[in-house]
Amino acid sequence: MDFFSQTLEAITPQDQDSRKKAKNRLDNLTMPHWAMGRLMDLALDLAGISGSMKPPVEKRVVVVMAGDHGVVSSGVSKYPQEVTNQMVRNFVAGGAVINAMARVARASVVVVDMGVNACMEDLVEKGLILGRKMGQGTGDISHGPAMTADEARRCIEVGMELALELSQRFDILATGEMGIGNTTASSAITAVITAKDPDQVTGRGTGIDEVQFRRKVSVIKKIMAVNQPNPKDGIDILAKVGGYEIGGLAGLILGAASQKKPVIVDGFISTAAALIAHCVCPISAEYMISAHRSVERGHKAALAHLGKEPLIDLDLRLGEGTGAALAFPLVEAAARILNEVATFGEAAVSEATT
Amino acid sequence: MDFFSQTLEAITPQDQDSRKKAKNRLDNLTMPHWAMGRLMDLALDLAGISGSMKPPVEKRVVVVMAGDHGVVSSGVSKYPQEVTNQMVRNFVAGGAVINAMARVARASVVVVDMGVNACMEDLVEKGLILGRKMGQGTGDISHGPAMTADEARRCIEVGMELALELSQRFDILATGEMGIGNTTASSAITAVITAKDPDQVTGRGTGIDEVQFRRKVSVIKKIMAVNQPNPKDGIDILAKVGGYEIGGLAGLILGAASQKKPVIVDGFISTAAALIAHCVCPISAEYMISAHRSVERGHKAALAHLGKEPLIDLDLRLGEGTGAALAFPLVEAAARILNEVATFGEAAVSEATT
Repeated sequence: MDFFSQTLEAITPQDQDSRKKAKNRLDNLTMPHWAMGRLMDLALDLAGISGSMKPPVEKRVVVVMAGDHGVVSSGVSKYPQEVTNQMVRNFVAGGAVINAMARVARASVVVVDMGVNACMEDLVEKGLILGRKMGQGTGDISHGPAMTADEARRCIEVGMELALELSQRFDILATGEMGIGNTTASSAITAVITAKDPDQVTGRGTGIDEVQFRRKVSVIKKIMAVNQPNPKDGIDILAKVGGYEIGGLAGLILGAASQKKPVIVDGFISTAAALIAHCVCPISAEYMISAHRSVERGHKAALAHLGKEPLIDLDLRLGEGTGAALAFPLVEAAARILNEVATFGEAAVSEATT
Repeated sequence: MDFFSQTLEAITPQDQDSRKKAKNRLDNLTMPHWAMGRLMDLALDLAGISGSMKPPVEKRVVVVMAGDHGVVSSGVSKYPQEVTNQMVRNFVAGGAVINAMARVARASVVVVDMGVNACMEDLVEKGLILGRKMGQGTGDISHGPAMTADEARRCIEVGMELALELSQRFDILATGEMGIGNTTASSAITAVITAKDPDQVTGRGTGIDEVQFRRKVSVIKKIMAVNQPNPKDGIDILAKVGGYEIGGLAGLILGAASQKKPVIVDGFISTAAALIAHCVCPISAEYMISAHRSVERGHKAALAHLGKEPLIDLDLRLGEGTGAALAFPLVEAAARILNEVATFGEAAVSEATT
């Protein structure tokens, strides 16, 4: 069996026995029943994912994958393509929001060039980013596919390989991305997989106006008509309307699931990657933690498709993994509730009288 | 002028100049405009509160005030009164949820006996809690006032004094509480101040059933009829339908505001204390950060009255300051966005083309 299939094969459901044990402990903690609400649901997931009553969450990494998108030539974004390269350099210099948010969470940041349309070799050689370039940006998906099916599969493999490597050093992974134009690809992916009309899943991206918005919707309709991706085939969707960084993140999520590591999924673009991962292997969703509810319109449909409710809702719409980084402390909180809180018996606290 | 009036006098609006400077910087950060949403609004508040472009948020304390409520004899709670004392001991032992959440936030926890109906001297003598006992629990507010007007004022002063003391050592304060029966007092306070019917602001507290819930609503109606608190007089409301810990927290909030320190307000009971603080001195609301949206029904009306939108919404209903502790990393994130993120100019990133 090849590496791709092996990885998928290794993705199995959460450990039900650990979930049950965790449920039993959480039911008896010194608090009104389930009074920490969704953090307790999350604690069950952490137990089920790790197969442990002490799910480790201390060693944290945000993987920020960057790639460019040929479709920007259709005027779907407010920023020029060169910003992808510039922002990667901003990440490396430590001056971007993801750097600041990772400091809050005491998380490492790993930046990966999946297909930026610029030479990044200087950064790769200095060991500041990982060079996994699949091409100088994808093809313009309003005229044809983003990449070949082989390339799409290879993107996912690259993400899987990285997840396996990082799983040796980290307890929990988070996704982030940078790529001017990637909300357009993400809206297309979301439209295909959730079977929604493009206008229901298209948002303002970096902040386009009404005229640009209408153009973006019509470009996405054209993308769908030109490419006709098969909604049941994750590789086909990625190849036709995806992006290199989106494929890499789909692979990262699948790889994390194969290693029984929780993976925090950032906002709209990361969730589009999660949709691809789910399409390729539905069980992988059991390892995903949704970080935050993006302002981007299509995010709601994508989350509903995955059955996920995000932890944070603060009108964020930046990407880079910033929402995911902010979720780390909440995940830590869930693990600590499971590990560190006394039961009624342990603390000699009286239980409810009814 | 006495200490109480002096403290109120010292509460002045946020520094508008610092807010403007912060707005100017945030408008130029390397991201689509205001893409970190409500964290950027929070960054403005931090600048306005501290009068600084580098608002300090590292030294953190959660103040958990405990008190008992005579009204529990009317069967409004699912847990016996002894649980207040037992939980204070659980806080001291480090086994409660607030201890675990404070570890997430690297925050200190200060526990204060404001009026627990049990001897806490052993803990006070060992320096494990602060002894500020105003009485052995409040009077049963379904039959008469909780305390005298002098005691109500003294509760607030105690909180103010503590805030002044803690402001020497900490950058940011958070509120927490423990007191069986205190959702009943909080619903009464909320009903008075927001001018809502008791059934609109009464919830399930620690988890009472339908029969107990109906009893609780009728008890709160009786409390209102018996006490007739003056909705414009915070001291009168506190004296008639409040609690010792609620008064202490109102004072803590006012004291923090007088010291230009941000104060994170936890859930429903802490917000009832914030309503008292706001009633006594409306400007104090400019120093409050609402931590989370409680499951408790009355919280919505209380937040609307204060004009606050909480940061977290995770179905929490525990109190103890647990939601407030979880908000610390988000406040840190807001400060770091202001301090650590490069502007377009600094990072040489291209700006939007429109």
